[in-house]
Amino acid sequence: MAEISLHKPYPAAAVTKWDRETDVVVIGFGATGACAAIEARTAGADVMLFERNSGSGGASGLSGGEIYLGGSGGTEVQRAAGFEDTTEDFAAYLKMAGGPCADDAKCDLYAREAVNHFGWLKAQGVPYRGNYLPGKVIEPTDDSTLIWSGSEAAAPFYKHAKPAPRGHVIQHMGWGGGRPLVDILEARARALGAQIIVDARALALVQEDDHVVGAIFRIDNAPVFVRARKGVVLATGGFVMNEEMRRKYCPQTFKIKDPIGDKDDGTGINLGVGAGGEAIHMDQFFTTCPWTIPESHAKGVFVNMQGQRFINEDCYHGRVSRTAVDQPGDRVYLLLDSAHFEQPPEFGRLTIAGTGHDWAEVERELEMPEGTLSHTMEFYNRHAKEGRDPLFDKQPPILTPLDQGPFVALELNFETSYFSFFTLGGLKTSTDGEVLDRGGSAIPGLFAAGRCTSGLPAWGHGYSSGMSLADCTFFGRQAGRNAAQR
Amino acid sequence: MAEISLHKPYPAAAVTKWDRETDVVVIGFGATGACAAIEARTAGADVMLFERNSGSGGASGLSGGEIYLGGSGGTEVQRAAGFEDTTEDFAAYLKMAGGPCADDAKCDLYAREAVNHFGWLKAQGVPYRGNYLPGKVIEPTDDSTLIWSGSEAAAPFYKHAKPAPRGHVIQHMGWGGGRPLVDILEARARALGAQIIVDARALALVQEDDHVVGAIFRIDNAPVFVRARKGVVLATGGFVMNEEMRRKYCPQTFKIKDPIGDKDDGTGINLGVGAGGEAIHMDQFFTTCPWTIPESHAKGVFVNMQGQRFINEDCYHGRVSRTAVDQPGDRVYLLLDSAHFEQPPEFGRLTIAGTGHDWAEVERELEMPEGTLSHTMEFYNRHAKEGRDPLFDKQPPILTPLDQGPFVALELNFETSYFSFFTLGGLKTSTDGEVLDRGGSAIPGLFAAGRCTSGLPAWGHGYSSGMSLADCTFFGRQAGRNAAQR
Repeated sequence: MAEISLHKPYPAAAVTKWDRETDVVVIGFGATGACAAIEARTAGADVMLFERNSGSGGASGLSGGEIYLGGSGGTEVQRAAGFEDTTEDFAAYLKMAGGPCADDAKCDLYAREAVNHFGWLKAQGVPYRGNYLPGKVIEPTDDSTLIWSGSEAAAPFYKHAKPAPRGHVIQHMGWGGGRPLVDILEARARALGAQIIVDARALALVQEDDHVVGAIFRIDNAPVFVRARKGVVLATGGFVMNEEMRRKYCPQTFKIKDPIGDKDDGTGINLGVGAGGEAIHMDQFFTTCPWTIPESHAKGVFVNMQGQRFINEDCYHGRVSRTAVDQPGDRVYLLLDSAHFEQPPEFGRLTIAGTGHDWAEVERELEMPEGTLSHTMEFYNRHAKEGRDPLFDKQPPILTPLDQGPFVALELNFETSYFSFFTLGGLKTSTDGEVLDRGGSAIPGLFAAGRCTSGLPAWGHGYSSGMSLADCTFFGRQAGRNAAQR
Repeated sequence: MAEISLHKPYPAAAVTKWDRETDVVVIGFGATGACAAIEARTAGADVMLFERNSGSGGASGLSGGEIYLGGSGGTEVQRAAGFEDTTEDFAAYLKMAGGPCADDAKCDLYAREAVNHFGWLKAQGVPYRGNYLPGKVIEPTDDSTLIWSGSEAAAPFYKHAKPAPRGHVIQHMGWGGGRPLVDILEARARALGAQIIVDARALALVQEDDHVVGAIFRIDNAPVFVRARKGVVLATGGFVMNEEMRRKYCPQTFKIKDPIGDKDDGTGINLGVGAGGEAIHMDQFFTTCPWTIPESHAKGVFVNMQGQRFINEDCYHGRVSRTAVDQPGDRVYLLLDSAHFEQPPEFGRLTIAGTGHDWAEVERELEMPEGTLSHTMEFYNRHAKEGRDPLFDKQPPILTPLDQGPFVALELNFETSYFSFFTLGGLKTSTDGEVLDRGGSAIPGLFAAGRCTSGLPAWGHGYSSGMSLADCTFFGRQAGRNAAQR
């Protein structure tokens, strides 16, 4: 018997007996795997979906269930709320959000297809209330649909793509819409006849020459060989829970402390690379600290330990947080006045580091040199009163003077505050979901989508809420359908 | 005949005839390859060294020939100049310089062995004048030996490791000592009987199961199969000249324009990964802009487009430059007064962006809002007169007021100024130079060193001059010797 390894495909010639056989094997039962299974079944393929946990969910199940959608003039929800959203503007925003890591072909395809994708989601049974919730929220606390979930209206994005809200949230009261989203997709996959096998951990792919022809799972403590006549779809998530991989590929994440995910240990990335694929942009990660709760805090001003502002705070909370992590030292401060300060929620672990009757007193309490933070705020307030931010182009109405004393500085400490993060790097795939080798050719029979790939949310500084589930659901579908059609 | 590919080892079973045979095959004839060949021959192995160019050199040949050395109380040059340098301080500095990417085992080993390595270099015939050149220079313009070539005396480094100058430059008049360094190592390798084959481009490795047993080269337009009885050493440099690889792994480098290297196209990384190795920290790069020429400019102050300082400018010029590239926008400014300004050399492509009789006038000329740059400089000068930099802890004597008008702002523009760069990510190797697979095991018969690996210079923000050649020469030796001793 050959060695069974995540890192090296098992040779088909060494398989003595296939324990099971199907057309398409899907590995991982988050939103990506569910969508792949649905589409593969819809295309007529037999499907077996394997999940290491005892049920569906993955990181998708822990999410807010928000999907980034637009283009084609706008979804019906966008249009009902008065927002036009051209495919060109949507594609331009996606590419800016991908920054130096953008996959232009994926951005273009998704911008063209997102409205159809919304229709497909609804056809699977995903409910949307259909209303628009103005303001700057992380997720609706009610069951509203459409929110501003990125940096669309903020510099530099608004200059290059006409802004529109694009976060579409499943109808679900409060946070945590990811769980019902996956439940609906699971029900649909089951109804279509996908076979679901849980408590089944992927151990290896099986390859015949370059072709991926199956996979090996650990079920009931024994290896089970599963033949995939058409293809294998990797849908196993990122590697945020694998400290060794983070050390090698994404060591900057050790500056912060709160990985979020399910069992995202890089399994799919390792399987894919072992089969000849390649992992790209592995240094990229999303992070956020919930500094916009309560919502009035979104009008705060950030300074680093030098008392300098570093970003237009009206952009996406995750973009602010990611840039915060770039600052020298171990913390940044969120400055608020009495008109905007409320006690922050405990889970964020933000502390009051300084207060004062004027900004100079706050400066002293933070032990910053005289003329640093106080000058920053004098300059900021003077221009904010004129509706301008000459340094970072923050826009009204979020741009507002903070001049109603007393004043407060909240500390966002990288060691102790809640900076959640997950990884964005992964397998390089085609728009059809094929895993590509280092020469750019598809590995026959191997597909992947979601956070085990580098997709729409490719760049930590450009992430917007809903972008990862957009990528998971849409390219999960692509992978499943194309696997079935081989 | 099987396919010959950089990305996939050629199966040994498909080799019909070995055209040549030796113990150790070395690929690449920069300092790394030369040192590997010398040590492999010294250990008694037959050695063939293959180089794609018509002669030796590689990126090493384009360098300054400076090697970062210290520890064990100090090299004889350090001690003669009055600097003690403990192994602990040296190791601590190397680890800080490696930042989140540091390979502690390599840092510890090198810190222990560097003084012996210096002896070895001299024994190969590398000449050192032996004197100390104080001040802050990129490379000596004469034939001096010892210079401050990193951030040793600057914050935060000086707080955690006792500073000492560690850049040891080959005796050679002016810049460009890398060429004679490689010439001397080449002569030594030849004298020891290493066979040198030039105009030979590596096409593929040959593998038998996991064992690397040879390589294929293109020579006289035909593939030549070379058997390596003991091992293959990859010494082919980084991937700075491969735009496709940079796009996938190191896209931030597209913000700047001047790759430096020879034919550093990632050949060794691709060969190693194809054979089961893994490439780590692929997003890391070194960059520098020659802003410390003339030397008086080292006392300048940097601001970003917001008029904010962003670093203690007394640290290594490459650390300043790398941090500059992190700043928002397309440029930063180097501020100088008449006591320090001289016309910069043309090759740096720095332009005078603003001048003034006071800093407020410079601010206006740069079209910065009133109270930005001028406040920054008022604050800086006030504290510099007291010998303090409360923001970034820059140290005297480089910390000095810039208050002798007229004043000038030099523009360092990422698009147009000379920001040279090269990549730092590469194969993960053991301290013995073995290429490690993703599970951490050595790939039998495969070794690598230099910039096709991630080594001592692992982190762009921590690079110090001489660190890459230290890594190339020392770990090149490790790889060659260990290949020979298999």
